[in-house]
Amino acid sequence: MPSSTARTSPPPNILVFLVDDMGWQDTSVPFHSSATPLNQRYRTPAMARLAASGMKFTQAYVASVCSPSRVSLLTGLNAARHRVTNWTMRRDRATDAPHPTLVPPAWNVNGISPDPATPRAICAPTLPGLLRQVGYRTVHIGKAHFGAADTPGANPLNLGFEVNVAGHAAGGPGSYLSEQGFSGAWRQADAFWDIPGLEKYHGTHTFLTEALTREALAEMERAVHDQCPFFLYMSHYAVHVPFAPDPRFIERYRDAGLDPTEAQYAALLEGMDKSLGDLLDALDRHGLSDNTLVLFLSDNGGLSAHGRGGPPHTHNAPLSSGKGSAHEGGIRVPMLVRWPGVTAPGSVCEEYTMVEDLLPTLLEASGAASRLPALPPTDGRSFVPLLRQTVVSAPERPLYWHYPNIWGPTGPGLGPFSAIRVGAWKLIYYHADRRFELFNIPADISETTNRLADCPATARALAGQLSDWFRQVGAQMPTDRDTGGLVPWPDVALAAATAGTGGPRP
Amino acid sequence: MPSSTARTSPPPNILVFLVDDMGWQDTSVPFHSSATPLNQRYRTPAMARLAASGMKFTQAYVASVCSPSRVSLLTGLNAARHRVTNWTMRRDRATDAPHPTLVPPAWNVNGISPDPATPRAICAPTLPGLLRQVGYRTVHIGKAHFGAADTPGANPLNLGFEVNVAGHAAGGPGSYLSEQGFSGAWRQADAFWDIPGLEKYHGTHTFLTEALTREALAEMERAVHDQCPFFLYMSHYAVHVPFAPDPRFIERYRDAGLDPTEAQYAALLEGMDKSLGDLLDALDRHGLSDNTLVLFLSDNGGLSAHGRGGPPHTHNAPLSSGKGSAHEGGIRVPMLVRWPGVTAPGSVCEEYTMVEDLLPTLLEASGAASRLPALPPTDGRSFVPLLRQTVVSAPERPLYWHYPNIWGPTGPGLGPFSAIRVGAWKLIYYHADRRFELFNIPADISETTNRLADCPATARALAGQLSDWFRQVGAQMPTDRDTGGLVPWPDVALAAATAGTGGPRP
Repeated sequence: MPSSTARTSPPPNILVFLVDDMGWQDTSVPFHSSATPLNQRYRTPAMARLAASGMKFTQAYVASVCSPSRVSLLTGLNAARHRVTNWTMRRDRATDAPHPTLVPPAWNVNGISPDPATPRAICAPTLPGLLRQVGYRTVHIGKAHFGAADTPGANPLNLGFEVNVAGHAAGGPGSYLSEQGFSGAWRQADAFWDIPGLEKYHGTHTFLTEALTREALAEMERAVHDQCPFFLYMSHYAVHVPFAPDPRFIERYRDAGLDPTEAQYAALLEGMDKSLGDLLDALDRHGLSDNTLVLFLSDNGGLSAHGRGGPPHTHNAPLSSGKGSAHEGGIRVPMLVRWPGVTAPGSVCEEYTMVEDLLPTLLEASGAASRLPALPPTDGRSFVPLLRQTVVSAPERPLYWHYPNIWGPTGPGLGPFSAIRVGAWKLIYYHADRRFELFNIPADISETTNRLADCPATARALAGQLSDWFRQVGAQMPTDRDTGGLVPWPDVALAAATAGTGGPRP
Repeated sequence: MPSSTARTSPPPNILVFLVDDMGWQDTSVPFHSSATPLNQRYRTPAMARLAASGMKFTQAYVASVCSPSRVSLLTGLNAARHRVTNWTMRRDRATDAPHPTLVPPAWNVNGISPDPATPRAICAPTLPGLLRQVGYRTVHIGKAHFGAADTPGANPLNLGFEVNVAGHAAGGPGSYLSEQGFSGAWRQADAFWDIPGLEKYHGTHTFLTEALTREALAEMERAVHDQCPFFLYMSHYAVHVPFAPDPRFIERYRDAGLDPTEAQYAALLEGMDKSLGDLLDALDRHGLSDNTLVLFLSDNGGLSAHGRGGPPHTHNAPLSSGKGSAHEGGIRVPMLVRWPGVTAPGSVCEEYTMVEDLLPTLLEASGAASRLPALPPTDGRSFVPLLRQTVVSAPERPLYWHYPNIWGPTGPGLGPFSAIRVGAWKLIYYHADRRFELFNIPADISETTNRLADCPATARALAGQLSDWFRQVGAQMPTDRDTGGLVPWPDVALAAATAGTGGPRP
């Protein structure tokens, strides 16, 4: 029977705890089939506590870079649809690095906007706006990065949030240190990167993560006082570059002999985890835990190229590569969900999910389905059935990635690409050289063996499904400098690659 | 390679020619595998001309009543999603007939609205609004019926149309006769039904269909003069009740011995067809035919209950039932598309399509994909590949119907229902008595044999797919007066119906 509980029981509070650039292995909680060396390195007891009392998702997917994920989270739309395919920064200006053979399409460089008249921006209903419509206090804390500077979407208050602390157009912090006023001036960065609204912490030796946590706690208390359900979007700047040593946690990692950069990174993670613990404690203290859905997620894979210590592209092992990549290291992240009375304590979900699933999931959980005039159409699917464990296995649902852009670094899976996953298989299409990779993910989580040559029918089916969907949503392809034409759809490219050869070549 | 022609060739003009309440057999063009007696009765030479020069769709589907179809056409959303599941009329007031055991849900009785603050209305981007954004002159002529009276959506000018002639909240004409001022006063109807904006024709002996045609021709000329591409939404009040004798065409049908009501109906159809011919002639005259996409459609099946002559529910034969019904007579309609250079003359498409496909189809045809910041998410799929005949067969795409409402008349397939079609099969779920019907449509187009008992696995699979989707979009179910609870989802009802019996019972 269709649930009508939403009308009678109070709607759950929702805490989305979003970490920036955190990789799948950046935690002591094992998301792989067994604990890995990285799980030993990092200390995240609050995540362990959340996992023990909720559900762990081992195959949670996001976009390979930040803005696409964040816009998908806010709108429930896939990046190929919303066209904010790369990270946003300044109005009307693309952030793509130069590329020898490709020119990126006219993607939505202005991000998301509440105003349909904003050029090169996606205008769509947002998760906070919809939750606010059904009575939630909607609070944004931390990194926003939804719209380019000097566009309406740069300000979370224009996107459905009633409260905004420290969120603006920038996708990273000027500094983590209050002694530096959270400004990028110390590194001669543009004032664009200066975090707004935390002036009272300047010079107080309060680490950025801690300052944001205190703000979140205050907002939680305010919502409790006002007796309204809250949507708290706790979006940490951590663990994005530029790293800084968090004095509260750095010693342990230095003592363990980690290189200085990696020690800073590990301490950033532990500080982030301490924030999670503080928020969970506050929920307990206010008696809210039983009626609060907590969702922990990262926005893309862990950084594995420039800026990290150690050998490149080893930071998400056993996953290949990292942020920006079509390989698992770029798109698979830790996700934990605790919804008392719904998620079984210590449960594990092995089904895959996608970042655009959050909006339909949280709308369903909030009971908005019966309180809004209609639910917005989305590319995402609610995974409430997975939380309830009422489905044994998800159907062969396709997931799509589309990144016709140039991030910069090189490495496995990096470069303009499109990809599809269905069941065990992931097909990746590299726009620059029309190359394909086909991996059986459960059998080869490190993506070492390209199965294109021995599974040509699977590759063709996936390329067809991906292309059909791209044509439907109007996915934008880059232009080839040499031919002046658009890069072909995956199915056309695959057919061309295999013409006369009897089969595709990797 | 992704098409980039939209950037270089001029966008096609678009003429959507929408008829009201016209059945699948209400034409001399054979939409069935062979010509039927009804094809002999009706005279629609302009439709035959369009079919000969374009593509005929034999399985074009729509909703079973008008507002759901029209809102789907304008938004690309399925009725279960947009929740305008029944026909709209007055602000905040439902139009459902009483029902002994069910209470309809809180559906969107105010229709579509440009203002998210309008209660019980769907707010979504519209086809005319999007086409206008990319430079089209958008013209509405005739019946609108998009929003309830005294809401913003009642006026097509608030929904993306630049021009509106004769469209308002009403779903039918006061009168077809200029001598009656197109008013319903002659039948003591409320002024609500009086057609606005045609005062210059009052008393001129101009039949309504003709007056609307002349207005459309004038608007077409204006667009030609202004050299802008046009979207002309020619939405006839014909052939909705109350019928009136069109003096230009009635004699032939009276002479043929048809009963008076059916003679009026046949003449209404011929008058509608003459309008189509006039518009096609005008396209030729202006040299526009080669760059104009013409799409002909009806909004729901032909009326087969009260108001028609002859035995009830015979008016769409060989289809069962008519308007309001889950059977084919209620949801399958004539569709013709002519897009020179794309559709092959005299071609036939046997794949099924759904009314919400029009928005993505026409956005693709107009080249809007590369000119809008993003394409809106829809439940419909573009059928441009079908027009181009680049796909041999559509995949096993599901179509969904959801009508948790009470129209009034009784007969086959009538009453609150949900339905799904996948491939050959259609499963219907009747909310009142939790009864199911399963038909193999190609094998049994008249829906005479319920296959529920001998194909239980098919029924279960379809019920599951339908229910999963309904849960995702938050489909609204009626309330059972006896239990006070919501009518169960189809999969739950089917499981209950088959528990302990070894199989479902029809």
